[in-house]
Amino acid sequence: MRLDFSDERVLAVVAHPDDADYLCAGTLARAKADGAEIGICVLCQGDRGQPAVPIENLADVRRGEMAAAAELLQAALLRGQFSDGCLVDDPEARKTLVELYRRFRPTLVLAHWPGDYHSDHRAASALAEAASWYCTSTGHESRAAVMRDQPALWWMDTINMTGFEPGFYVDVTQYVDLKRRMLACHKSQLERGEDGDFSPLEQQMVRQCDARGAQATVAAAEAFRAHLVWKRIRAW
Amino acid sequence: MRLDFSDERVLAVVAHPDDADYLCAGTLARAKADGAEIGICVLCQGDRGQPAVPIENLADVRRGEMAAAAELLQAALLRGQFSDGCLVDDPEARKTLVELYRRFRPTLVLAHWPGDYHSDHRAASALAEAASWYCTSTGHESRAAVMRDQPALWWMDTINMTGFEPGFYVDVTQYVDLKRRMLACHKSQLERGEDGDFSPLEQQMVRQCDARGAQATVAAAEAFRAHLVWKRIRAW
Amino acid sequence: MRLDFSDERVLAVVAHPDDADYLCAGTLARAKADGAEIGICVLCQGDRGQPAVPIENLADVRRGEMAAAAELLQAALLRGQFSDGCLVDDPEARKTLVELYRRFRPTLVLAHWPGDYHSDHRAASALAEAASWYCTSTGHESRAAVMRDQPALWWMDTINMTGFEPGFYVDVTQYVDLKRRMLACHKSQLERGEDGDFSPLEQQMVRQCDARGAQATVAAAEAFRAHLVWKRIRAW
Amino acid sequence: MRLDFSDERVLAVVAHPDDADYLCAGTLARAKADGAEIGICVLCQGDRGQPAVPIENLADVRRGEMAAAAELLQAALLRGQFSDGCLVDDPEARKTLVELYRRFRPTLVLAHWPGDYHSDHRAASALAEAASWYCTSTGHESRAAVMRDQPALWWMDTINMTGFEPGFYVDVTQYVDLKRRMLACHKSQLERGEDGDFSPLEQQMVRQCDARGAQATVAAAEAFRAHLVWKRIRAW
Amino acid sequence: MRLDFSDERVLAVVAHPDDADYLCAGTLARAKADGAEIGICVLCQGDRGQPAVPIENLADVRRGEMAAAAELLQAALLRGQFSDGCLVDDPEARKTLVELYRRFRPTLVLAHWPGDYHSDHRAASALAEAASWYCTSTGHESRAAVMRDQPALWWMDTINMTGFEPGFYVDVTQYVDLKRRMLACHKSQLERGEDGDFSPLEQQMVRQCDARGAQATVAAAEAFRAHLVWKRIRAW
Amino acid sequence: MRLDFSDERVLAVVAHPDDADYLCAGTLARAKADGAEIGICVLCQGDRGQPAVPIENLADVRRGEMAAAAELLQAALLRGQFSDGCLVDDPEARKTLVELYRRFRPTLVLAHWPGDYHSDHRAASALAEAASWYCTSTGHESRAAVMRDQPALWWMDTINMTGFEPGFYVDVTQYVDLKRRMLACHKSQLERGEDGDFSPLEQQMVRQCDARGAQATVAAAEAFRAHLVWKRIRAW
Repeated sequence: MRLDFSDERVLAVVAHPDDADYLCAGTLARAKADGAEIGICVLCQGDRGQPAVPIENLADVRRGEMAAAAELLQAALLRGQFSDGCLVDDPEARKTLVELYRRFRPTLVLAHWPGDYHSDHRAASALAEAASWYCTSTGHESRAAVMRDQPALWWMDTINMTGFEPGFYVDVTQYVDLKRRMLACHKSQLERGEDGDFSPLEQQMVRQCDARGAQATVAAAEAFRAHLVWKRIRAW
Repeated sequence: MRLDFSDERVLAVVAHPDDADYLCAGTLARAKADGAEIGICVLCQGDRGQPAVPIENLADVRRGEMAAAAELLQAALLRGQFSDGCLVDDPEARKTLVELYRRFRPTLVLAHWPGDYHSDHRAASALAEAASWYCTSTGHESRAAVMRDQPALWWMDTINMTGFEPGFYVDVTQYVDLKRRMLACHKSQLERGEDGDFSPLEQQMVRQCDARGAQATVAAAEAFRAHLVWKRIRAW
Repeated sequence: MRLDFSDERVLAVVAHPDDADYLCAGTLARAKADGAEIGICVLCQGDRGQPAVPIENLADVRRGEMAAAAELLQAALLRGQFSDGCLVDDPEARKTLVELYRRFRPTLVLAHWPGDYHSDHRAASALAEAASWYCTSTGHESRAAVMRDQPALWWMDTINMTGFEPGFYVDVTQYVDLKRRMLACHKSQLERGEDGDFSPLEQQMVRQCDARGAQATVAAAEAFRAHLVWKRIRAW
Repeated sequence: MRLDFSDERVLAVVAHPDDADYLCAGTLARAKADGAEIGICVLCQGDRGQPAVPIENLADVRRGEMAAAAELLQAALLRGQFSDGCLVDDPEARKTLVELYRRFRPTLVLAHWPGDYHSDHRAASALAEAASWYCTSTGHESRAAVMRDQPALWWMDTINMTGFEPGFYVDVTQYVDLKRRMLACHKSQLERGEDGDFSPLEQQMVRQCDARGAQATVAAAEAFRAHLVWKRIRAW
Repeated sequence: MRLDFSDERVLAVVAHPDDADYLCAGTLARAKADGAEIGICVLCQGDRGQPAVPIENLADVRRGEMAAAAELLQAALLRGQFSDGCLVDDPEARKTLVELYRRFRPTLVLAHWPGDYHSDHRAASALAEAASWYCTSTGHESRAAVMRDQPALWWMDTINMTGFEPGFYVDVTQYVDLKRRMLACHKSQLERGEDGDFSPLEQQMVRQCDARGAQATVAAAEAFRAHLVWKRIRAW
Repeated sequence: MRLDFSDERVLAVVAHPDDADYLCAGTLARAKADGAEIGICVLCQGDRGQPAVPIENLADVRRGEMAAAAELLQAALLRGQFSDGCLVDDPEARKTLVELYRRFRPTLVLAHWPGDYHSDHRAASALAEAASWYCTSTGHESRAAVMRDQPALWWMDTINMTGFEPGFYVDVTQYVDLKRRMLACHKSQLERGEDGDFSPLEQQMVRQCDARGAQATVAAAEAFRAHLVWKRIRAW
């Protein structure tokens, strides 16, 4: 069985610069290989992800890192430019994301699980969901043209698989190495390995792909659930 | 088995002008027939529900439409006057709804399911819930007198029955035609049938009443769940 | 709000002689007062509910006790005559219960929650459910005539409220004393207060009615959930 | 997005002769069109599905009816030959189904939801699940050769969509008419339209396809969930 | 089996001055007896908890009451000083709580269940959760030093046990009397016994401890669930 | 925080000879180190776990293997002697397990999750649960004396963590190596690495301990949930 992404425009909407690499880059790569258009929309600047020895202009540094990772994936990169730790689902942030949606025009959005571990992830989740409706509403103005159809929306796995029941799995066996290389672009974060709020993310990511793969009888997988509300579900 | 609404004051709290017609007008009509007082509180103006050819003064137009629908049902109409797409559960909005509660003095509130498809529905849900506590709190001031008892609170079905497990069903077999006629009052919306963000709501509503009815062994039903928190539950 | 049971035929299907007194006798009394026919179907004999000093002919003794309790409630008493600890949902037991259903002809069955604490309760739950379909099936023969309509089915609360999310509550404020007197009929069990597998049931029952009542804003309540499958749901 | 079934061997395991037509025939037809092998395994004979005027040799009659329906679909037909109302998940029944699995050698099994409305459906569900492990176990002997890999297992929707949360939807817009024609093969059942335990199944089936379709933004859909246990999940 | 709190620093984060006494003071006392450091962080002033005859300077009065209760428990008292009914999870409130966390430096936080009955409780829940991550993030500045490790987080039971499934129970048999005495410190609230929005809390609290105890085979217990997200879980 | 098992008698009830090693041996070792009595009750003989080249007298061989593993752990070994693939929760099997319980007299039983991947696991789960009540019932006779108190019951994690939401975690960092050595005792199973129904269990077990550990902020953990029914819960 195979999911065929060939006619899709898949946009991952994440909170921080390295979230997509960890949670859904394999699926994006699969979609790309099928001929889909793919993009990553990073809502926050990553400006508070400071290592023990703080980096000046951290937001700028991370902009470069995420561009490098997106380049490896050959994905369009969209940026929300919000500050870390402050993301909220309010009218202004929705307006920003509606504009970005109408620019990329996704048919499928990959978003953080509403119960993920970090409040920015949860706010990004709420925003991705709200905008997935408003992007088609003529009453919500933007420079880009109103979209005709709401995108489908899939919730991504959580960090460390806590509190997430998969609805289905995507085989990413071919793309674990790419995911590793993408994570490795975030050099500013690699220096945080010894910090209290940081973990060896690469090892965690690989273990998670392995574990999800073992559940789904392949070498490596990413897990998702469909968001079950009106106009955001698609039959396959 | 019959639920007897005769001594109740039932208030539906909805986001947009046509939501009550779709989701709970049959139950309101049942309550009315039992001798209950009934009301519809519409929190948003419907000002962004524009058809392809925009209507000037849309909020005014929709005010008339919702008044006509409420008239058919012989329900009191309360209006929150918030803008579409901006509804949030904040102190100011709570103050507005507490005032409206204390005016209507409901013993039962029908509110959107917290996981419904539209962020205004979810905000309306949170507001209806918060106000169902604060309406009895002397510390929250208003022109109308503080209420003595919190109203019971029922969550309404979702649009298209996605992600909603009913707790119980109300037989509305007698009132499907009334629901149709109420929906037909929203003429500004009927022109949106071809838009990307709009669906033939009447057909959807009828199918949903049929499907809920078939689940509950009657011709047509509306589904609800009790909100299980302190002081908002009633034994029957 | 009131549930009106007046045209119903309500049958509680329980595993052991004192289960209905604890879990649903207040609701049965409510239904009786509304004019409904009520019955208790006890599937097991209670033959293994021995106190420390064993009682000879315990099954006979308990038959008298349950008759006395049913008499207080003025409920019909139906007995399945299975041995304690052996109840299973198999074709023979279904045949027995189908016969009893077709004799009493319930429109509403109250059954143990499938996850209750005792394997006899769980088997009684499965049997009550299976028979609620087969009672209308002409292919399942019995002495009594085939029923035309499946009864509705409500799951009862669990002992000590563990693992049970109520769907709705029935006000039994008027009937707590009756429930106490019914439990007091089971004299053989009162001697078990000191045994390892027995608890002071009356106190537990009263605390549970109090606690469910406090949740539902009345002095005492019994909690239920509707069984959500085809033909066993009713709209009210 | 499309699920591609081309290399699959899809087997629907159902309790009664018309269950597959209602719940999954559209998906089987989709798989067939992709080039997959498809089959229907009917565990019971349908021998108790008597209309008001009983049919002699009902099991024989229904064998013909199900053969006709399978013929329309061009699906292999496997039969378990158990009696209606008696299906249980026991070693003998497992042996029968393991033998059938090893004959058809499915890579994907479609099975009844464990909480469906009929005890035969629930037993069929448990059997389909148990056999999906034992079919690969050399310790379980059969005439046909042991299978190398466990099939994936999907739970099918319930009758009337009660108590079932979809994990994903399959677009069956092209096959609703085929489903109607398959259901129409079960002439013995069409005479039951007026019986207490029977409903106008065609109308119900079409409404369910419509409703699931409306949830998933297509004209007609069938809903499923993946069974989340070891070796029965596949990444796509 | 015993949970040993000896090396912990346990901080209860609650909305109102008497919430900890009701929901977790027994567990705090247990931890204290084991040698742990304990604290109560009250986010709101209690300034809207007015009895029928309003009290001037209610916030001041309640500050004294909560100090007396904390004194009985010998717990540190931290105060957020927000107004009742206005608590929200926003950047400013997070900053306040991060500061308080970094002062007390908890290893375990006890927080309101996200679905509790009062919107302040839900906001306190969201804040306690958000701050449990940000307290270790160097990008979030404060006077007190950044923490090295995120605290574990447990959700507390709800008022009246509605909608809360316990994950585990703490035996507080020894501390029910202390909990009563702590509640009795809140004299301003005792005068509210007759108000529409107030209940005899002591009786409710004792019944809840009894009921949770009966579920867990002890005389009195408090119930909790672990918050299942990254870095906020601990293996014991 | 630490769970102290010192006064417990912990019995793991598993289906097959190597299940305890995989799912709970670390917790048993922890309990042993605290001074608890520990035991493993293996219900099936493992007689159908044949490698490609069948082993004669496989049941005997596996008896030796499980004895060696239990010896490493210094745990009592109890055996149910049922055949693989045939385990059911029936009166006879319950009688066997009640006898074994009354011999070991557990205060805590570790049992398979009711939704685990293998029907023997599910039957073992149902049996462990049923016997945890009947072991204290004088009406259920046995050679060993009736127990006074029901044991607490914890559900163990599933194979590969599918479909299991942990309630709490036990730190087994010290015992991963022991678990490896225990698994290595099952030499007959190591030869099955290439079979269709077998996996490299050691690698899977280690990954699962790692993943559960990472969720719970330790190097290795085993996950459990309390069984929430009357008399099988304990407050700690």
